[in-house]
Amino acid sequence: MDLPVDADRLRDDIEATAAFGDVDAAAGRGRTVLAGTEANRRAREYLVDRLDAAGLDVTVDAVGNVAGRWVPEGADSEAAPVAAGSHLDSVPEGGIFDGPLGVYAALEAVRAMRDAGVTPDRPVVVVSFTEEEGQRFADGLLGSSVAVGERTVDEALALEDDDGVTLGEALESIGFRGEGRLDASGWDAFYELHIEQDTALEAAGVPVGVVTTITGITHLDVEIRGEANHAGATHMHDRTDALAAAAELVLDVEAAATDVVDTTSDSAVGTVGSLDVSPNATNVVPGRVEAGVDVRDAEYGSMEAIVDAVRDALARLEDERGVDTACSRPFDLAPTPMAERLREAAHRAGEAAGLETMDLHSGAAHDTMHVASVTDASLLFAPSRDGISHNPREWTDWDDCADATRVLAGALAETAGAE
Amino acid sequence: MDLPVDADRLRDDIEATAAFGDVDAAAGRGRTVLAGTEANRRAREYLVDRLDAAGLDVTVDAVGNVAGRWVPEGADSEAAPVAAGSHLDSVPEGGIFDGPLGVYAALEAVRAMRDAGVTPDRPVVVVSFTEEEGQRFADGLLGSSVAVGERTVDEALALEDDDGVTLGEALESIGFRGEGRLDASGWDAFYELHIEQDTALEAAGVPVGVVTTITGITHLDVEIRGEANHAGATHMHDRTDALAAAAELVLDVEAAATDVVDTTSDSAVGTVGSLDVSPNATNVVPGRVEAGVDVRDAEYGSMEAIVDAVRDALARLEDERGVDTACSRPFDLAPTPMAERLREAAHRAGEAAGLETMDLHSGAAHDTMHVASVTDASLLFAPSRDGISHNPREWTDWDDCADATRVLAGALAETAGAE
Repeated sequence: MDLPVDADRLRDDIEATAAFGDVDAAAGRGRTVLAGTEANRRAREYLVDRLDAAGLDVTVDAVGNVAGRWVPEGADSEAAPVAAGSHLDSVPEGGIFDGPLGVYAALEAVRAMRDAGVTPDRPVVVVSFTEEEGQRFADGLLGSSVAVGERTVDEALALEDDDGVTLGEALESIGFRGEGRLDASGWDAFYELHIEQDTALEAAGVPVGVVTTITGITHLDVEIRGEANHAGATHMHDRTDALAAAAELVLDVEAAATDVVDTTSDSAVGTVGSLDVSPNATNVVPGRVEAGVDVRDAEYGSMEAIVDAVRDALARLEDERGVDTACSRPFDLAPTPMAERLREAAHRAGEAAGLETMDLHSGAAHDTMHVASVTDASLLFAPSRDGISHNPREWTDWDDCADATRVLAGALAETAGAE
Repeated sequence: MDLPVDADRLRDDIEATAAFGDVDAAAGRGRTVLAGTEANRRAREYLVDRLDAAGLDVTVDAVGNVAGRWVPEGADSEAAPVAAGSHLDSVPEGGIFDGPLGVYAALEAVRAMRDAGVTPDRPVVVVSFTEEEGQRFADGLLGSSVAVGERTVDEALALEDDDGVTLGEALESIGFRGEGRLDASGWDAFYELHIEQDTALEAAGVPVGVVTTITGITHLDVEIRGEANHAGATHMHDRTDALAAAAELVLDVEAAATDVVDTTSDSAVGTVGSLDVSPNATNVVPGRVEAGVDVRDAEYGSMEAIVDAVRDALARLEDERGVDTACSRPFDLAPTPMAERLREAAHRAGEAAGLETMDLHSGAAHDTMHVASVTDASLLFAPSRDGISHNPREWTDWDDCADATRVLAGALAETAGAE
C-alpha cells in the first residue's frame, strides 16, 4: 500500500525536537537529551502536544513510556493494535535524527492514513520509549525492557544515575511518571524506522533499508586496579600503572575485533567507549581504571570470540603487570531476527511507492530487539550521510526521511488491515 | 647543632591536620585538601592557631601564602631571615604527610629553639605555600611561584578552576586572601623537610636524606581528536578512534621513559597521569581524548628525549590513524641543584644528633625548586614506607618524622646563627 506523507510536517516535528537540549557544534546540529532531564521534558511535552493535535489518546506509563492510540473509524477497538515508534533521548552530544525520526515518522504515518481516509481494522499506537540510549540509568533500551516484561516497573524506577537520583525521581521531576505499564505483548506487530548509522544504503544509493537481523550486543564493565603513586618519585620499574594496563586492553579489543572482521564476520565490532581514570591527576601514577567495552555482531559466536579476547587480555595483564582486574557483563543480547511478514510488507510498500528497498542488518541495538521477544517486529532504515551518528554531524536528507516514512506508513497501514 | 624536638607535639599537629578533608580508604589514611576548599580553610586556620600559640607573628599574603615570623631575643629584626616550610594542600585522595610534615617540622624547629633557649641572630620564618600540588588552579608550586616573582599576584589571583572560580574568589571565600606578597628573595636561606616518596632511604636504612638536586619537570597537555561515532554501526575499518590512538600514546610514553632508564638515566620517569575521554559512553567510538603527561629527571637531556618520543608518537598517530593532535607544554622546570652550604649544615646537624644522613636526589617537584631561583635552598627527606605517596597508604613512621625534624631544627638553628 502507498500512502503519501507530508514531508514538511514531518520535518517541522524533527526540527522542533532538535531544539531541545541543542549543543554548540563546530559542524552539524547536536543535542544532549538524557532521560529525565529538562531537555527530555520539553521533547516529551512537545510530543504529547503533537499526539493530542492529531487526535490520538495519549497515555504515559509508570516508567515514562509515551503512547498515542488511534482507533480508526470502524476498527475493532479490542483488536491487538499495530504499534510503531522509537525514542526521544540521545547520547551526550548526539544527533537530531537518532530516535526522533522514528517517533515522528510513526505519527506522520497515522496522520497520513487519516488525511487519506484510510481506516485499518486495528488500532494503531505511536510509541516513544524511555531512555533507549542508556546514558543515565541503565545500559540501554530501558523503556522497552519494561514494556516486554524483561524488567519490572519497580526495578526500573529504582535504577539510579551517578548522583544517586532514581529513574522514578527523575520522571517525577519532569512530570512523566505515569501509571500502569505499556505492554508490547498485546501488540499484533511493531515497526521502528531509524537512521541506519552506517553506509550500506548510501553506498547502494537505496533510500530505504529493511533489517533482517539486529546484531547482538554485549557490554562488559572492566575494572583494572594498580597502585596510585607519585609520578615523579616512583621508579619506572616499581610501578603498577592501571592506565598503562588499560591502554593494552583498549588496543587488544581493537585488534581482536579487527581480526574477527578480517577472518570470520565482517559485521563484528568491539569498542572501548568509556574510560575513567583514578585519581586522574597528571602527577600521579594512575591507580584504577574503569572501562566500558561494547561488543556486537550478527553472529553470537564472533561476539564471544571478542569477549574471550578481553578475558585473555585481563589474565595476561594480571600476570605481566601485576594489576588486579574484574570484569562483569551487565548487558547481553543475542542477535535478533526480524519478522518475515513485516519485512515483506515493507518491501511491498516500497514497491507500491516506487521506492527501492534493500535487506541489510543492523549493527546498532534498538528497542525493536526487545519488542521482537514478545511479538512480530520490524526495523526500517533511512540512509545516514557518511554513516556518522552519535555525533552532531549525523545527517539524513529530509527527502530520505520522507521516503522512508512513506514506506513505513504503507507497511503499517497494510499490517493494520487497511485496504 | 643538635636540638631535641617534641615528637608528640609534632605528631599531634600532623594528626590534627590529617582530619581535614579526610577520606575513607580501604588501607591507610587519606585526605583530599584542594586549595581554597573548606578542608583547606580548616587546615589553614589550625596552622594560624598553632603559629599564634607559639608566639609567631602571622601574615597571609595576597595569594594565601601563610608565614609565621619569629624574631629571637637579641636577634637583628632587620636581618634577612632563614625560612622553612612546605604546604598544606594535597592531591585528591592523597596522604597525610606530604606537605604537613614540612610545615609542622618547621614550626616544631622554632618551638624547639625556644624551649632550649637557643637564640639565633636572624629571624626565622615558618612558611606554608598555597597549592603546591597544582590540582585546582595551576600545574603546581603556585604559591611559591608568586613568592619568587615568577608569576605576579594578579596573574595568580586570576587563575580559574574547571568551574571558572578564580583563585582570588576561592581564597576570599575561605578568608585567606591577604595583603602584599611573601618575598622569598629576602630570605637568607630556605629549608623544606618533605617525605621522600621513594625508597632510597628505606632501602639504605637511613632516617634522613639531604637532596643534592631536584629533578626537572615538564607537563605536556595532549589533545587527540578522532571522530565520535556509533559503536555498533561503525565498521572496524571506518573508525578514527581517539581512545585507541591515546592508548598507543600511553604505552609509547611508558616505553620511552623505560628505555631512558635502562640506557641513559636511572632517575627518568614519564607518566600519563590523566586521561579524559569524550563523549565517554560505552556505545560511542571515542571522538576526543585529553591526556596529561608528566616527564621528570635530574638530567634535562633525558627529559627532552621523552618529550621527543611523545611528539614522534603524535606524528605517527596522525599518519597511521588519521587523528588530529595538539601538544602544549604548560609547565617546564629544569633540574635544580641545592645550596651546598645548607646541605653541609644538614649533614652536620645529623652528625650532632647521632642520626645518619645521606645524599640523594628528589624525583618530585617541590616549592624549594622555585625558592632556589632566588636564594640558597635545601630539601631534606624523611623515609616513605614502600615509597608510596599521593595515596592513603603513604606512611612515614612517627619516629622518622621526629628524627628528620631534629636534623631540620639543628641545621636551621645553625644557619640562622645560633651558637
